[in-house]
Amino acid sequence: MIHNFNAGPSILPKPVFEEASRAIQDFNGTGLSILEIGHRTPLFEAVLDEAVSLVKELMFLNENKEVLFLHGGASTQFFQVPMNFLSPDKKAAYLDGGVWGSKAVKEAKLFGPVDVVASSKDRNYSYIPSGFTIPTDVAYFHYTTNNTIEGTQMHAIPETSVPLIADMSSDILSREMDFNRFCFIYAGAQKNIGAAGVNLVVADKSFLETANSKLPSMLDYRQHVANGSMLNTPPVFAIYVCLLTLRWLKSIGGVKAIEEINLRKSALLYNTLSSLPIFNLPVAEADRSHMNAVFTMGDPELEKMFLARCKSEDMVGIKGHRSVGGFRVSMYNALPLESVESITALMKDFANKHA
Amino acid sequence: MIHNFNAGPSILPKPVFEEASRAIQDFNGTGLSILEIGHRTPLFEAVLDEAVSLVKELMFLNENKEVLFLHGGASTQFFQVPMNFLSPDKKAAYLDGGVWGSKAVKEAKLFGPVDVVASSKDRNYSYIPSGFTIPTDVAYFHYTTNNTIEGTQMHAIPETSVPLIADMSSDILSREMDFNRFCFIYAGAQKNIGAAGVNLVVADKSFLETANSKLPSMLDYRQHVANGSMLNTPPVFAIYVCLLTLRWLKSIGGVKAIEEINLRKSALLYNTLSSLPIFNLPVAEADRSHMNAVFTMGDPELEKMFLARCKSEDMVGIKGHRSVGGFRVSMYNALPLESVESITALMKDFANKHA
Repeated sequence: MIHNFNAGPSILPKPVFEEASRAIQDFNGTGLSILEIGHRTPLFEAVLDEAVSLVKELMFLNENKEVLFLHGGASTQFFQVPMNFLSPDKKAAYLDGGVWGSKAVKEAKLFGPVDVVASSKDRNYSYIPSGFTIPTDVAYFHYTTNNTIEGTQMHAIPETSVPLIADMSSDILSREMDFNRFCFIYAGAQKNIGAAGVNLVVADKSFLETANSKLPSMLDYRQHVANGSMLNTPPVFAIYVCLLTLRWLKSIGGVKAIEEINLRKSALLYNTLSSLPIFNLPVAEADRSHMNAVFTMGDPELEKMFLARCKSEDMVGIKGHRSVGGFRVSMYNALPLESVESITALMKDFANKHA
Repeated sequence: MIHNFNAGPSILPKPVFEEASRAIQDFNGTGLSILEIGHRTPLFEAVLDEAVSLVKELMFLNENKEVLFLHGGASTQFFQVPMNFLSPDKKAAYLDGGVWGSKAVKEAKLFGPVDVVASSKDRNYSYIPSGFTIPTDVAYFHYTTNNTIEGTQMHAIPETSVPLIADMSSDILSREMDFNRFCFIYAGAQKNIGAAGVNLVVADKSFLETANSKLPSMLDYRQHVANGSMLNTPPVFAIYVCLLTLRWLKSIGGVKAIEEINLRKSALLYNTLSSLPIFNLPVAEADRSHMNAVFTMGDPELEKMFLARCKSEDMVGIKGHRSVGGFRVSMYNALPLESVESITALMKDFANKHA
């Protein structure tokens, strides 16, 4: 068995792979591949409708929310959000809590004034800034709920009356949250939702009414809403994989159930790492991510040996992001507890041998 | 056997479905799904590199061309092209030859002045305008090589010294063309190249240098070039399906070989339709598309019966676009001659019974 700790694209549930593989040869007994069905057919409309319904159900969304599946990844949303909701007269507040958040800031500045309320860049984004004040004269406040690269996670939703926008790419549907507190949520699918090439967007209807006009059609959220995510040919297969993954999540008990498993996985991993002095945890304890655990070893030779040992035991995707170094173990929804048990056993053994 | 005449997403070669299906369970013997491999791994880099090489080889591109695979579909390019190459001071010329071309015009007007050199809207885009003059004081001339909805195709490349931009979504790689004549080509993949959710872009290096600056990163072609189509997580699976389809095309002899088959298919279909007075061909003979054949029957009752008959013989995707009505038979590269033989046999039999 291969243990896939990739940060994204990443492991998906085994039944999703099985069913997606079948659907490429024969989708729902039609004799047609999911890749060759028209998007404006009842066949695909049923896929899209069920995916949207499952998002609403699993996230407990209220009636004011629109759910969209759009081309691209979170990087597409970095500019599309400010293009829709900012202007030279409309300011936004951003939290600079990680590499991805800082990229979102950079794109926003092309469209209007940006107030960066706090930053953790001073210590390579190894903590979540706290004690910041969100100004009230802004169109929205944007933050990243989980920083995939740095292994930090913002565990609480900021208290503010300002419309909240969150990039939830790497922890959406991994934990219970009051998703209705947000006026706009986006997430690239390739971690907890499905395959690369599609974004999930959850937007408040009334917030959408504040969007700018005269936008290119494909960048105008309201046009996507009016066309039910079918303004153009959608990424059919990527949406289908989302559907399969959402069905799987529902089948195992939804977000509450997966959160329990996720907490067990991350507790096992962090407790193991903390108990073994050979490993260093650069992230402030309170801010550690339950999705991506970052750790280093200080000694480059030891790091090489550890990497080789993991590879020899079929553990893939643990190399840290080039901007952080060391290691990163991603534990998305689909990663079984067994994989964390395996890598923690390996860690203990490795530490024993090299202490 | 199902005969899939869908206009897009559409039929792909059978070996592509088989191999894509296998790769979702086990990609290249890695034990991992193509959906769960990291995009910054040698595994995926090899996929992307080979896909780019095959595009260059199959299109006989010269050294000045860059090949990109970008998120989205042609509709994304409708605004991204003028956003990069137009401005209030930089005019463009467009040919309004079909519904998609007119959408491209609409998006371009958001970014700069647009000179529509000719239009066939007067007769519901049932012909390709001719005798138009392309002004020389424009940044580029844009046209659609094949009009999927209306079933028209521009068989010759316009003679002009102005940089040529073409939307080739529905006939790319279906016929020999001097692709090097174009400074910029784009094509949504879901007809002749692969699955929905990715665009192929072929751009002249020197033309890219004329692009505007201060663009959002994801909309800046030059940033995509600098990052080898990996500015963000690319649509991994959609690109992989492109690779498989390009490999198939090469294996059967490339564009020259497929063009011969495509011409046989369209000749058989149009000759059959022309010989049966029960069918009407609204498109001017010289402008008929070898990819999408549009026809009507005049009598709504007969049309219903014909549609039912096709359905009963497992022929799908022949209903015409709502803006044109009647029928549309799409004959992309992957459609076997056998399917056209089957539908033409059915047409003759139907005409005999209902003449």
